[in-house]
Amino acid sequence: MSDTAFSDLVLPPDGRQSETARAIQRGALRYLAARGLVGVPEFSLASGRRADIAALDLRGEVWVVEIKSSVTDFRTDRKWADYRAHCDRLFFAVGPDFPVEILPEDTGILVADAFGAGLVREAPLHALAGATRKALTLRFARAAAGRLMGLMDPEALRGVVL
Amino acid sequence: MSDTAFSDLVLPPDGRQSETARAIQRGALRYLAARGLVGVPEFSLASGRRADIAALDLRGEVWVVEIKSSVTDFRTDRKWADYRAHCDRLFFAVGPDFPVEILPEDTGILVADAFGAGLVREAPLHALAGATRKALTLRFARAAAGRLMGLMDPEALRGVVL
Repeated sequence: MSDTAFSDLVLPPDGRQSETARAIQRGALRYLAARGLVGVPEFSLASGRRADIAALDLRGEVWVVEIKSSVTDFRTDRKWADYRAHCDRLFFAVGPDFPVEILPEDTGILVADAFGAGLVREAPLHALAGATRKALTLRFARAAAGRLMGLMDPEALRGVVL
Repeated sequence: MSDTAFSDLVLPPDGRQSETARAIQRGALRYLAARGLVGVPEFSLASGRRADIAALDLRGEVWVVEIKSSVTDFRTDRKWADYRAHCDRLFFAVGPDFPVEILPEDTGILVADAFGAGLVREAPLHALAGATRKALTLRFARAAAGRLMGLMDPEALRGVVL
């Protein structure tokens, strides 16, 4: 995470997301919490890409949830397949009006609004190698704790590259 | 972390700490951030005890920082030695007036106020076993992300045991 600048440690500014994407994000995070997973939005992967949500279950399984606010958003995204290398399960989270049949078959599907989400299809498991999981879990831990520190005491992270 | 109730996922209520302990906590967290570590205050260990601060460096080294707000606080604490089994390095963090010579020799010492901390003595390394580190890192990741979720959307964690 040495490439993580201060800007990655504060919550993502509202401007980065559409209203729809924000609602889906909140609903998906609530769904994850109800299933016992903790999630970090806008999680920077080692590849430099950002996953919309990364989540960890009690045993350390890593999920990535990609939010698609529209069909156009999905069609123009060429990076989602890369996320598979950084998780044990890959989901798309979309709004209630999204035509889920266009989503790739080997991914999970959540249909979400601002208040929660429903599972349309479970994501297949493609287990990470041990070393990758270890590095990802540490990265996740540092991202979550860094954001928490930034919220509790913004001054603490001034000029710090974690 | 199945034993972690909702109450562990929100920030500790002010009432749990003295003003002095809070100041030392903030200063110690700033010191950790400046050294590239992220810290989680009031971290519940697998043993059920709470470490005042648990921290992770970039390589995954785990530090525990025990805050002692007074000599009495130190003399009456019989649990600090247990923390060694849950970290690679164990520090005490005390205020500027604390007589540091009474602290155990095989621990690190930080002298802190609300604005930062100075290193009086580096903590010796007693490296964790791999399985313990793995479990601790996951626990840390889930604690930090759970608190972050609780701050961003308290409703998401209502009735949830993470």
